[in-house]
Formats: sequence, structure tokens, C-alpha cells
Amino acid sequence: MNNGFVIKGNICQTKSPKELDLHEGAFAVCVDGLSRGVFGTLPEEYACLPLYDYGDALIFPGMVDLHVHAPQYAFRGTSMDLELMDWLNRYTFPEEEKYEDLEYAERAYGMFVDALKRGATARSCIFATRHRYATELLMQQMEDSGLVSYVGKVNMDREASSTLTEDSADISAYTTFGWINAVKDKFKNTKPILTPRFIPCCTDKLMEELREIQMTYGIPVQSHLSESRGEIDFVKILRPDNPFYGDSYNEYDLFGKNDDTNTDVKTVMAHCVWSTDEEIELMRKNGVFVAHCPASNINLTSGIAPIRKYLELGLNIGFGSDVAGGHSESMFRAITDAIWVSKMYFRMVDEAYKPLVFSEAFYLATKGGGAFFGKAGSFEEGYEFDAVIMDDGVIPHPQSLTLAERMERAVYLGLDEKNITAKFVAGRKVI
Amino acid sequence: MNNGFVIKGNICQTKSPKELDLHEGAFAVCVDGLSRGVFGTLPEEYACLPLYDYGDALIFPGMVDLHVHAPQYAFRGTSMDLELMDWLNRYTFPEEEKYEDLEYAERAYGMFVDALKRGATARSCIFATRHRYATELLMQQMEDSGLVSYVGKVNMDREASSTLTEDSADISAYTTFGWINAVKDKFKNTKPILTPRFIPCCTDKLMEELREIQMTYGIPVQSHLSESRGEIDFVKILRPDNPFYGDSYNEYDLFGKNDDTNTDVKTVMAHCVWSTDEEIELMRKNGVFVAHCPASNINLTSGIAPIRKYLELGLNIGFGSDVAGGHSESMFRAITDAIWVSKMYFRMVDEAYKPLVFSEAFYLATKGGGAFFGKAGSFEEGYEFDAVIMDDGVIPHPQSLTLAERMERAVYLGLDEKNITAKFVAGRKVI
Repeated sequence: MNNGFVIKGNICQTKSPKELDLHEGAFAVCVDGLSRGVFGTLPEEYACLPLYDYGDALIFPGMVDLHVHAPQYAFRGTSMDLELMDWLNRYTFPEEEKYEDLEYAERAYGMFVDALKRGATARSCIFATRHRYATELLMQQMEDSGLVSYVGKVNMDREASSTLTEDSADISAYTTFGWINAVKDKFKNTKPILTPRFIPCCTDKLMEELREIQMTYGIPVQSHLSESRGEIDFVKILRPDNPFYGDSYNEYDLFGKNDDTNTDVKTVMAHCVWSTDEEIELMRKNGVFVAHCPASNINLTSGIAPIRKYLELGLNIGFGSDVAGGHSESMFRAITDAIWVSKMYFRMVDEAYKPLVFSEAFYLATKGGGAFFGKAGSFEEGYEFDAVIMDDGVIPHPQSLTLAERMERAVYLGLDEKNITAKFVAGRKVI
Repeated sequence: MNNGFVIKGNICQTKSPKELDLHEGAFAVCVDGLSRGVFGTLPEEYACLPLYDYGDALIFPGMVDLHVHAPQYAFRGTSMDLELMDWLNRYTFPEEEKYEDLEYAERAYGMFVDALKRGATARSCIFATRHRYATELLMQQMEDSGLVSYVGKVNMDREASSTLTEDSADISAYTTFGWINAVKDKFKNTKPILTPRFIPCCTDKLMEELREIQMTYGIPVQSHLSESRGEIDFVKILRPDNPFYGDSYNEYDLFGKNDDTNTDVKTVMAHCVWSTDEEIELMRKNGVFVAHCPASNINLTSGIAPIRKYLELGLNIGFGSDVAGGHSESMFRAITDAIWVSKMYFRMVDEAYKPLVFSEAFYLATKGGGAFFGKAGSFEEGYEFDAVIMDDGVIPHPQSLTLAERMERAVYLGLDEKNITAKFVAGRKVI
């Protein structure tokens, strides 16, 4: 057994949403990029492997960000007084136009990738822009970082500025074919994902083309769904025959597993704040992943997604930072934000849906979203080996804390933005 | 003119809630601890004063925290899955009991004061515990820090654990007399404030004693009001004759300016989440300050205070971090949290009350709360000179930003927790 190693420290994870799984001074073993489990005493068979001893540090599974816009990182934390459609037209679309310029793209994407690498995120689903070459450049940077990601060249052939919108559905499709051919086998950790921006920006013809492309390459799909009321009203006008927003994706077999057409497309939809019962039922049936983006939903005054309800119904759920609707790329922040909005939903909207507790939110940020990548977000045997090591000794404290308290405090106080001392992704040390 | 200095940089403030007041490469002049205003060109009369040139840095007025519990700093960011009354009994009260031990108090308070000093807060209203000597120790530490504060020894003679509760109203009052006599003239920047914990912890007899003490010394008052529904229900049982919670304080002349008794007591009440119209009207009439604590109100699932409504009615309003109900002492975080909860209130509860915009929230964190200290939270002429200098160059960015964008971004990205390079409080350099 050569291709492996062991890390030692205080291992904190959530095998199930209901409880923390804590191991003080324990060993996590990685062989061939996969976890062999967590051990209080290192089994003899792994004694020959190199050991990284992190002493009293905290060890978490790598976080999973199911929804983030790389080109929006540049203006995060600004222009937060607007709602979605105004924010898109006044800030987002003009910024995204700049990625036609590869020099700008290299500089701006470099900052995004660097931040992601330094933080706690191991895996992510990333929107680029409509620009093929800037997207390839981003994919190369992501590959170089050692992180794992799906990256999407955006498709959009209507309803944005003329410079950002692609000239036609045909051109959008043609560029997308070229892009997928160029990248599909190029990288180990960075894969293409089909990325219709959202229904308002995609003509029926483009959606038809995207169905063809998906069938040709069998790649997954990411998009936005039922984020804000203004957007939903607009979709109703654009697609009056669909009974609900999500049906517009499903019609083109871009919405999970469709029994009617016998297709199965791994799909993640961001937001799902205002999904109707019909839409929720279709997401459940089709196994569509919900990327819950609490910070974005508040910053853009979109609303609060009823995550407790989705949990009870057994939907696939993870979190998205949704930079720059969300102003931070930190998934620790997403954990506490998700708890926050669930508390407000419970108290101010519907007491039938209890707030998320810490273990549930931590689970969603790791194993919940990790399921989109197969088996990720845990140190259980057979999972991809992603680990984040933090020294919480930098937070002064007058007395000893339990490991559960240290774990919760590291997340609430945002230790991922301050003090990640080592990081492994897919069994490789990236920091 | 000897006792003064000038600072130069990008000055960002809010003279009114409705707009940012921005000055690139401008001069702020301090003489005798007070601001002489902001100038694009330095007037001749100040040319002889020493100049601190902060180059391209951002300069904000010092922040004002109207509600924070120093002894709770030690467990911030832990045990956040509980509501108020459970959280008090299971975590807060046991922790506060430790402040009987002066060695523990010195160590724990030292960490709190150090964090406050390194952050953007210039002025604060602080709860200590019921312990006189630990409170005096905290006051000495605050004075040594150079920050300005009101600090309160807590009064509580019922409904907490027997070790934390004071043995009787008489003993509580006697200790409070001793404490005030010892500290009232001892410090320049650190003053005592009368601090009944809240009605559930104060017998009628204690409230009567506190009225006497307030009349004797004329010191201000801080307490909690209408934070959670469980608490309000409990107050109704304890004080059935008061038509609303705030009336229980008013009955003892501890609720602002009382025309009936011709008394005028500067008062700040934390939370006011569920205040009735009658209570709101009395706060307005009496000039009571509301310390809005959005992070705490969400963490403890208390609710959302209708701050837009209070603004429209002309109430005095500032923000409180409410550590450890709030998990961060950052007032930058309080600014964005206040915007957040106002957005959720608007979208999910009542669209009649528009969300706070950035300039309004910044105003409340500076001039709004600053009014409790006289004239503070602005560089306008005659204001106490509190300034926070930050180098936002540490946040990489691919292109130039406007000063307004830089100001907003510094707050959203929490630059106060990372990069304060200099700080002045009451005209004195403390960092």
C-alpha cells in the first residue's frame, strides 16, 4: 500500500443530519484518493503510511458549494440595495461582458480561484460567462488549484444586453459544442456542466439545442429556478404553456430523471425559493438537487426557501454561496445563514417548519451537496478524501471547550476565512 | 492651537440616513477631542497641526454598540440552537457565575476588551454581571483601552440560579450603591449605567430601590425589552397590572423622560422585537433608545424588530451586537444583519415596511447610536472625534471601484475584523 497517507487531529463531521460525529485525536486514512474511515487507534495495515499530525487542530470534510458565479466575485459586497432583475441588468450583466477580454478574465478569475483554494470549499458547481475562451481559462485555473469542480459556459440568447447575449441559439449551441469538445477530456478534476442561464435568457430554440447537446455528451446541468417573484412572473409570460417554472426545463429533459422520456440528467437548480407544490414534487421525483443560497436570497430580497419542508420530503439538497448575490464565498457562512433564514421562516412565516439545527446545516454543506459529486463530504469509508484543517487556537478563550463547541464556534466565527492551515481535495494536498 | 491633529484619507460617513457623505483624499481635523469638520483642502489655521496621512485608506467614524454583554464573549458562537429562556438558563447564567472569580474575570474580560479595541467599535453600552468587583475590573480594562463606554453591574434578585441571583433586593441595592460610589468619578471614558437585567429577574422591591439609586446619582439606564414571546408572556404573569412590558420600567421612572413624574433618565432598551403600539408610543414620547440587535434576534429565534416602522415614527435607534446572543462583536456585521432582517421583514412579513438601505444602516451604527453619547458617530463640527482607518487594498480587485463601492464592500466583507490600521476615540489614538 503506497498511494496513501494518514492525517491526525480532531475530526468533526456529520454522517447523518441529526448528529455530530466527533473524534478527538483520531486518524483519517486516505488510500488512492478515497477515505478508509476514521480510527481512534491507527490499524496496523496503515502504520506504514506517511502521517500528517495536526495536533489539536480541527479537521472537517471539505465543503461543497453547489452554486457560485466566478465572474461575479469581482463585485461581491457592493450594490446590495437592489432586487434580482435590477441587479442583473445594472451590475451583473455589465460586469460579465468584460470577460470577452481574456486578460481581464485571467486576472479576475485568478482572484476567485485563489480565494476558493484558500477557503474551506473542496468542490463546487461554477457558472462562468457565455464566453468560451474565458471559460476554458477558468477551467485551467481551477484544475491547477487542485480543487474539484463542474464549470459551465453560460448559454443565453435573449433578454440581457446585446453585447452579453449570444447572437442566436445556433451560435450559442455551436460555441457550446466547441467548448465541450475542447474540455471534456482535458482535465482530471474539472468537468463541463451544461448551463442555461435561466429561462428568461434562453429561447425555446436554444433549449431544444441544449437538449441535443446534453444527449450527445451526457453531461450534467445547472441553472436557476423560482428565485424571485418578479422572475417567476416573467417566466409565466415567456412560457405560458408550462404549468410551473421547473416544467420549462423538464420539457427539454434538463431536469433530473425524466421517466416519460427515459432520460436521466444529473441536475442542480439554484434557489427554489417560491417553488409550488407541483414543482417540488417534480424535483423530488426527478432527483433534482436544490442549491439553497440563503445569503443571496436575502441580499436580493428574494425570500426564504422552505428547506425544512424539502428535507422532510427527501429532496436532494446542498448549499450555494451564490457569489455575488451572496457576498461571501465561505460555506461556513452558508451554514449559519441557512440556520438563520430557517429560524426566521419558523418564527415569522410558518411555525410548522422547525429551524435547522447546526448538525443538519453542516451535513447539507458537506454530504448533502457532496452527493452531487458521488460520495463526498465525509470521512466514511469509500468517500472522496477532502479535508480542511484549522487551528482554532487563534481564537482566544478563557477555558476549555468541548469538541462540539469548538466545531460550532469555528463555523460561526468564520475560521475558514482566517486560518486554514492545510487542505486536501480528492486525496491530494492542495494547501 | 496645540491640542489637535489632522488625519487624511478617504472619509466615508452618513450625516443623514438618506445618503453617503464621501470625501476622497480629504482632511478631518480634531481639536481638543472634537471634530472641526472635513475639508477637501486643509484650512490655513490647521496647517500647523500634526498630520497623519493614511494615503488611500478608508476612514469611517467609530462605530457605536448600544448593547453588548462582556461576560458572554467567552462562549460566543456556541450553543446557538436554543431559544432565549433555555439559552439563558443552560449557558448564559452558568457562565456568568464564574465572574465571582476575579482571576477568571480578568482573563475573560481581557479577551473581550482586546477584541473591542482591535475592532471598529469606539463606544459601547456594556452589561457586566451582578458581581461588583469583576465589574470594576472590567471598567478599569475598558478605561485602559482608550474606548468610551457605559458599563453596568447587573441587578437581578430572582429567576436565575441561586448562585447568580443576588440574595435580596436590599443586598442588590447596597452593592450597587457601593459600586457606583467607587466608580462614578474614577474614570474619564468609562461611566456606570444602571442595569436591571430585565423584569423577569427583578422583584418589585428591587425596581423600587433602583428608582432611588437612579434619582440619587442621575445615571442612565439600560435593560432588555420585548425580546421574545416567551419572555413577554412571563412578564405578563409577573406584572399583571402593567398594560405592556415597557410600562413596568416606566412605573419606576426607568424609561426615558417621564412627564408624569417630571423625571428624565437617559435609557436604552435592547431588542423591542414585539413591542405593542402602546409601548412604541411610550418609547417615542419618552425618547427611549432602541438597541436593535438583529443577529441575536435571529440566533435566539426571537423575531424581527420592525425598524423601518421605528424610523418612520422618529424613535431613537442604534444597533447592538448583543454578544453572545449575537455571535460577533463586529458592528459592520450588525449593519449588514440589520439590512438583512429588514429585507426579510419586508418580503416575508409586511411589504408596507421597505428594507433598510446601506446608508440608513450605516447611519444607525454611527450617528444613530452615537446620540446616546451626546454627539458622536460623525466628523461634523463639534462631534467627538472617533475614527477608524482601514486599508481595503488587502482585498484584491481586478479594477477600480468608486469610493461608495469600497465603503459598502468594506462593511459587507467585514474588514473591521481583519484590517484596522489605526483608530482614534474621543480624539485619542488608541491603535
